[in-house]
Amino acid sequence: MSKVIKNGTVVTADLTYKADVLIEGDVITAIGPDLQGDEVLDATGCYIMPGGIDPHTHLEMPFMGTYSADDFESGTRAALAGGTTMVVDFALPSPGQGMLDALQMWDNKSTRAHCDYSFHMAVTWWDKQVFDEMPAVIERGITTFKHFMAYKGALMVNDDELYASFSRLSELGGIAMVHAENGDVVAELSAKLLAAGNTGPEAHAYSRPPQVEGEATNRAIMIADMAGVPLYVVHTSCEESHEAIRRARMAGKRVWGEPLIQHLTLDDSEYANADWDHAARRVMSPPFRNKQHQDSLWAGLQSGSLSCVATDHCAFTTEQKRNGVDDFTKIPNGTGGLEDRLPMLWTHGVNTGRLTPNEFVAVTSTNIAKILNCYPRKGAVLVGSDADLVVWDPEKSKTISATDQQSAIDYNVFEGQEVKGLPRYTLTRGRVAFADGAIIPEPGHGQFVARAPKGAV
Amino acid sequence: MSKVIKNGTVVTADLTYKADVLIEGDVITAIGPDLQGDEVLDATGCYIMPGGIDPHTHLEMPFMGTYSADDFESGTRAALAGGTTMVVDFALPSPGQGMLDALQMWDNKSTRAHCDYSFHMAVTWWDKQVFDEMPAVIERGITTFKHFMAYKGALMVNDDELYASFSRLSELGGIAMVHAENGDVVAELSAKLLAAGNTGPEAHAYSRPPQVEGEATNRAIMIADMAGVPLYVVHTSCEESHEAIRRARMAGKRVWGEPLIQHLTLDDSEYANADWDHAARRVMSPPFRNKQHQDSLWAGLQSGSLSCVATDHCAFTTEQKRNGVDDFTKIPNGTGGLEDRLPMLWTHGVNTGRLTPNEFVAVTSTNIAKILNCYPRKGAVLVGSDADLVVWDPEKSKTISATDQQSAIDYNVFEGQEVKGLPRYTLTRGRVAFADGAIIPEPGHGQFVARAPKGAV
Amino acid sequence: MSKVIKNGTVVTADLTYKADVLIEGDVITAIGPDLQGDEVLDATGCYIMPGGIDPHTHLEMPFMGTYSADDFESGTRAALAGGTTMVVDFALPSPGQGMLDALQMWDNKSTRAHCDYSFHMAVTWWDKQVFDEMPAVIERGITTFKHFMAYKGALMVNDDELYASFSRLSELGGIAMVHAENGDVVAELSAKLLAAGNTGPEAHAYSRPPQVEGEATNRAIMIADMAGVPLYVVHTSCEESHEAIRRARMAGKRVWGEPLIQHLTLDDSEYANADWDHAARRVMSPPFRNKQHQDSLWAGLQSGSLSCVATDHCAFTTEQKRNGVDDFTKIPNGTGGLEDRLPMLWTHGVNTGRLTPNEFVAVTSTNIAKILNCYPRKGAVLVGSDADLVVWDPEKSKTISATDQQSAIDYNVFEGQEVKGLPRYTLTRGRVAFADGAIIPEPGHGQFVARAPKGAV
Amino acid sequence: MSKVIKNGTVVTADLTYKADVLIEGDVITAIGPDLQGDEVLDATGCYIMPGGIDPHTHLEMPFMGTYSADDFESGTRAALAGGTTMVVDFALPSPGQGMLDALQMWDNKSTRAHCDYSFHMAVTWWDKQVFDEMPAVIERGITTFKHFMAYKGALMVNDDELYASFSRLSELGGIAMVHAENGDVVAELSAKLLAAGNTGPEAHAYSRPPQVEGEATNRAIMIADMAGVPLYVVHTSCEESHEAIRRARMAGKRVWGEPLIQHLTLDDSEYANADWDHAARRVMSPPFRNKQHQDSLWAGLQSGSLSCVATDHCAFTTEQKRNGVDDFTKIPNGTGGLEDRLPMLWTHGVNTGRLTPNEFVAVTSTNIAKILNCYPRKGAVLVGSDADLVVWDPEKSKTISATDQQSAIDYNVFEGQEVKGLPRYTLTRGRVAFADGAIIPEPGHGQFVARAPKGAV
Ligand SMILES: [Zn+2]
Ligand SMILES: [Zn+2]
Ligand SMILES: [Zn+2]
Ligand SMILES: [Zn+2]
Ligand SMILES: [Zn+2]
Ligand SMILES: [Zn+2]
Ligand SMILES: [Zn+2]
Ligand SMILES: [Zn+2]
Repeated sequence: MSKVIKNGTVVTADLTYKADVLIEGDVITAIGPDLQGDEVLDATGCYIMPGGIDPHTHLEMPFMGTYSADDFESGTRAALAGGTTMVVDFALPSPGQGMLDALQMWDNKSTRAHCDYSFHMAVTWWDKQVFDEMPAVIERGITTFKHFMAYKGALMVNDDELYASFSRLSELGGIAMVHAENGDVVAELSAKLLAAGNTGPEAHAYSRPPQVEGEATNRAIMIADMAGVPLYVVHTSCEESHEAIRRARMAGKRVWGEPLIQHLTLDDSEYANADWDHAARRVMSPPFRNKQHQDSLWAGLQSGSLSCVATDHCAFTTEQKRNGVDDFTKIPNGTGGLEDRLPMLWTHGVNTGRLTPNEFVAVTSTNIAKILNCYPRKGAVLVGSDADLVVWDPEKSKTISATDQQSAIDYNVFEGQEVKGLPRYTLTRGRVAFADGAIIPEPGHGQFVARAPKGAV
Repeated sequence: MSKVIKNGTVVTADLTYKADVLIEGDVITAIGPDLQGDEVLDATGCYIMPGGIDPHTHLEMPFMGTYSADDFESGTRAALAGGTTMVVDFALPSPGQGMLDALQMWDNKSTRAHCDYSFHMAVTWWDKQVFDEMPAVIERGITTFKHFMAYKGALMVNDDELYASFSRLSELGGIAMVHAENGDVVAELSAKLLAAGNTGPEAHAYSRPPQVEGEATNRAIMIADMAGVPLYVVHTSCEESHEAIRRARMAGKRVWGEPLIQHLTLDDSEYANADWDHAARRVMSPPFRNKQHQDSLWAGLQSGSLSCVATDHCAFTTEQKRNGVDDFTKIPNGTGGLEDRLPMLWTHGVNTGRLTPNEFVAVTSTNIAKILNCYPRKGAVLVGSDADLVVWDPEKSKTISATDQQSAIDYNVFEGQEVKGLPRYTLTRGRVAFADGAIIPEPGHGQFVARAPKGAV
Repeated sequence: MSKVIKNGTVVTADLTYKADVLIEGDVITAIGPDLQGDEVLDATGCYIMPGGIDPHTHLEMPFMGTYSADDFESGTRAALAGGTTMVVDFALPSPGQGMLDALQMWDNKSTRAHCDYSFHMAVTWWDKQVFDEMPAVIERGITTFKHFMAYKGALMVNDDELYASFSRLSELGGIAMVHAENGDVVAELSAKLLAAGNTGPEAHAYSRPPQVEGEATNRAIMIADMAGVPLYVVHTSCEESHEAIRRARMAGKRVWGEPLIQHLTLDDSEYANADWDHAARRVMSPPFRNKQHQDSLWAGLQSGSLSCVATDHCAFTTEQKRNGVDDFTKIPNGTGGLEDRLPMLWTHGVNTGRLTPNEFVAVTSTNIAKILNCYPRKGAVLVGSDADLVVWDPEKSKTISATDQQSAIDYNVFEGQEVKGLPRYTLTRGRVAFADGAIIPEPGHGQFVARAPKGAV
Repeated sequence: MSKVIKNGTVVTADLTYKADVLIEGDVITAIGPDLQGDEVLDATGCYIMPGGIDPHTHLEMPFMGTYSADDFESGTRAALAGGTTMVVDFALPSPGQGMLDALQMWDNKSTRAHCDYSFHMAVTWWDKQVFDEMPAVIERGITTFKHFMAYKGALMVNDDELYASFSRLSELGGIAMVHAENGDVVAELSAKLLAAGNTGPEAHAYSRPPQVEGEATNRAIMIADMAGVPLYVVHTSCEESHEAIRRARMAGKRVWGEPLIQHLTLDDSEYANADWDHAARRVMSPPFRNKQHQDSLWAGLQSGSLSCVATDHCAFTTEQKRNGVDDFTKIPNGTGGLEDRLPMLWTHGVNTGRLTPNEFVAVTSTNIAKILNCYPRKGAVLVGSDADLVVWDPEKSKTISATDQQSAIDYNVFEGQEVKGLPRYTLTRGRVAFADGAIIPEPGHGQFVARAPKGAV
């Protein structure tokens, strides 16, 4: 049964034009005037855009014997409700665990996804087994490998391991990713703060200032340069890190930065909130920064020195957050955002004139599809592309609230924010999964998206 | 009669895929597998790319009672032989001449063009008449207005005139362009050099060092910022100018820089050639720079801080150049390049690994089409786009020589250069104008491309 | 009759040590332990520092038929009360007036000065007479020539005039100075604001944003580079200008920047004051900037990219300010500061830890003495140096108020500020001119300080 | 018996003036006209300057069971012959060795020094003993602590150790120093080069490119910033490192960079020399760089972003160098330079116009005396200062050759260089140790210079 989206304006990363879009099965089969289909979705007054791709989520992530509260079912439900049609999650091997073994676990977790997804693989330790398994991981369609420069004693890898892994990726045509904070210094600052009795969530921000992020970013860039591998820096939150990325790009290096919607729109004054719960719910790494850092991130999106907007969606309930009530280092790190990324970015980016609608599509979908080498299957409105689409109503507005969100947690860091610009319909591989404010669930519809190495970006 | 390009790989600014391309009349009507048409062009082993757009030419440009040697007939012939399917020339009002009047002259010159073309309008003086005529020029489809910050006593306009004109463009949705060199300082340095007996072509380079270009670029950016208008900086030749552009872009400003193929591949050692003719033939403004400036320009193309590669094609014969035999300031400024831009950039950009084929398309065609607001009619391989296409053979090579060039002049600044990567076919609005090394002329085929103001880039 | 300053700590730009200072006549004749003299000044708990040098004042400056309210008598009285022992004022030829003629006028104005002074000469127009008189001005001991890039239609000179004057200075061993704002753009913005009905003092700030200052600074640096002359940029008020200076210095160029104490400590929120008088009293060019610009200026003093702190003291009474009550462009530009510069800088610089006491001396006295080539006669505590000294009590505090100031005007832009760090004694060429809170006047004591060209800085 | 230096011109970091200098015992007792003394040193045509201070030497440094060839006797002899009157050497504890224990060894080595000297202490490992001994080291007058970020498996310390040590220094008022190269990456690159059969000295340079130095510098700056300690970066050899230092200084941080005379005047083409010995003799870390890096270092000295010129004098004979004949990683790292630093810098710095004579004194002597907190005892020409002086003849010239050098090694990396500007006399604490081309030896004359913490620079 075919579907046709009629009366809308197609907006892609580089085009804006009136056209209908015909969908047969999973894919777009025609774009043009006066198309006919069995089912009609009306897009009058709307933009037809590639569905959002969130390159950075942690669904059902293991943490201290429990898991982040949103799993692939609720997480992808939240995604679709916000116009996002693909998420990329991180497979995280435990210390000593093989990559293929970890991958099996992530395969198991993702069976109930409502939309398509892919994985990045994390390099959380290093030895010959890891080296040897990397080709098989790439063979499985996972070409992007994340390295933690922080979380000392847990996920962190050292410079020689970074170099070894980056070099291996260079051979294999993969892409290196980093969580860039200097884990040694974060550990020292954390210990010092705790020793001085600073146990509250505001100390979390003091323990990882912009300087430690900027330094690690700069270091990762150098190591990637030496190893000859492209580098993707996740959650770029500050001018220091952005400066290092800019400097590298200006020298012609292939480096990308990913600001989060949280860092673009929220600031560190949140940690000064007298309510412990309020502050703790916003604990993530890197922490929120001040408004000057926000300005830097927006300018980066405008000039192209920063490439993609993500969420790092890693939702913990207030109860889980309270694990760190006496010690900020025990507060689980992470916030939600999957449902809010597109509306928040449209409101603060497009409605303010900072970004054109085309640039909005680029930074929420197309750029990451190209970097991840799944373009134009994803991130495009082209004949033959997957019908992962959002019909976007620029006049629709709401107030964000936890009370009506898809996410499993009991709060929302954007609570109370007015957004204007929301999905009318969200389609995942041709299936209407969100319509007129309501989710039409189908757990398990989502499929894994394999990606080939040696992309051309 | 339809045509189909078969067995090739479509390469656009953001996609690479196997497909046939069907052309009916002027436009592309289908892209896909196994297309049929009346005439078949074989693209085996070739890339099917949007034809090049040269945003900066001076054909039959008036100069001291004569004209630049390539007119729209020979100039567009050279363009097509090199894979370029559209040129944008500058209408230059004489002092006191109205813009519409000048436009009439450029309309007359361009009747014999072999390929499509558009115009920029130059603001060479300023008063109420100019202010009043600007809407009519835009109405005619010319939205880009060039301002000379050099050529004092001739084309140069002052800062208050720049501000007034830029402000007017801001109201009208136009784009400001500048030739950025500090004309006052160039005039002073030139006079000083002549007074000291430095009359040769090498003194031309001394009279306009990178600093004067960097300064003017920085100034134009500030004035555009104050006036609220996007700015396009033509012939960005040096790190100083690039630095100013980078700094502006990093602050989120809409500024574009245009390196020339000459500045990317030739350097100032050419002016040290003992043969006066050799050196004088390379006299253009800005002059060739040293290799460090070249590195800066390439890095700019790689990182996106520079946007388009042009030629500033303004060809003068050796005889015309000799007008300045006793005084470098009387050497007509300009070189050729229309036929060589794409092969030289492919050879030095793509074959060296600096640019991907997609980036090559972006900087030779798509980016400028977007900036000039004629995308996707031009600069694209899409159904409905003009069939301005080049079938590019990456294995074809030749040695550049004036003896077999289309240009009317008696030399070539790239003489002796080996290039690998050449057109097999060039199509202009569906017409095959170049095939297997030979031009198939049709003067007058080319049409004017009108462009609307308020583009979305 | 000799004087000895006992029990203090000598603080110079590069030394801190306990010593007595013996003064005979105008000069220091001994520095060391246990010195004896006819008169003893007790410096217990105090620092003995070179008296401040203010490189930028406008005393009795002609303006629209009247004069700035502080003349050399009251101005130098204010200086001494604040620990400043030398001022450098600007001789301003009227259009067409010869430099030597103007100099005669400034000689006449300065006969009642309480402390030593020197002059800069302004190049307010350009022709052969100016060119020809420059050697005689230098012969008179005036080696620094100011050029206004703003005040279009009045003092402003164009780029060709700048280049000609800078080149002449290069030959003569002088130093170029600039008031750096793009006068063309300021004039356009002012006209636009007035046309839109923005006539109040806040519009003054809107009419000269940081961008126009940064641009002019960058341009002056380029012209100085081409002419081969050192450049001193007066009243550097913003990051844009500072950035241009930093970039030049980093390339090894001889360029200095001079922040004013006003820009270091006051911000543009002052112009939002509902009281017209309050805002208008703060109208000066460049206007006050926001706090991010302040941060930039302080960092410049710390790192050495900015060299000297001045006042641009040019005091107009509230009544004079009211000349512009209907039109901000008619508000006389200028504020006071001579009495407050040192206490304000000590309070906000040394007491906060931003500057060491040695750095304080450098930026208030020694650096400018070296640049102006009157070191170590001035700016030093050395045997043979003029006894221009301040005995500085770091524990003394007061609240700044117009009610007890020396300046002739009826307000103070620092009104209400608490300062800690004040002179106990100020000596001008051996004469005690300020002691324990009171001026001991002697109009005419001050002498002109001639300076030789080709200084070594 | 007093000495007087007559007929010369005193040149200090901030003054140039004609004066005689009287010396009694170890110190200067008078400076002025017409001084009399028992012994007269004629300085006609000469500059009387503070003797050079070399902040970075390795005399009799242990290495693989042997020692660097110049010990304190021959090293300080070389220093004096070149106008340098103080050296600062690095006490290097072996792994597990206590700092005080190491200090005893360095005390023993230095008994035969001809001129004064001080020590830096190296932090080559970290535990409670090191933490506990640091106050005693400072008590002994050693306030500067060097950390190696390279030499993995030997001297290298990690980021957490850096932070711990820097924090300790912050408490104690010390200064952190770093050898800044990323030791992990150097080790990986070295292994890769060796594995590929690149065993020659040219591979040494490939194994430690500018990027690894720039990265480590940037990292050290961040850690120092977090710990709140001033940072001194030894042997800054490249733009990348200089850029990081500039960026930090521009933000107001207390960071200093130290270019070596070798990096200022020699380049990496030396490693291409076909003679293994020639290349191996130039093996040091960081290696020589290309001419663009040289330009950066000179600009840094001119603008003040780099502070001191040193030698890293660590002389190995050709025979010692041949230890690495089959493996570049076994070539002892180090070159000579103590005798040549001042003449080479004068020739390439002052004679070329890059530096004034005052700036020469600043970067060879005064700046480091201030940073090390031994100014004005050292680095000054003041009454009371140690009579460590050089009488500098700007007209004297020679060709540098190993055949007539003081150093114990059999070659000189500056062999064949013409220098103009040489010492006529060198005095160490009042003793004439070099006169008219000949050393007048007195081993053991040199004394240790203790320095207090919490210097004011
Ligand atoms: Zn992370
Ligand atoms: Zn994450
Ligand atoms: Zn031009
Ligand atoms: Zn042109
Ligand atoms: Zn001014
Ligand atoms: Zn002024
Ligand atoms: Zn070292
Ligand atoms: Zn060393």
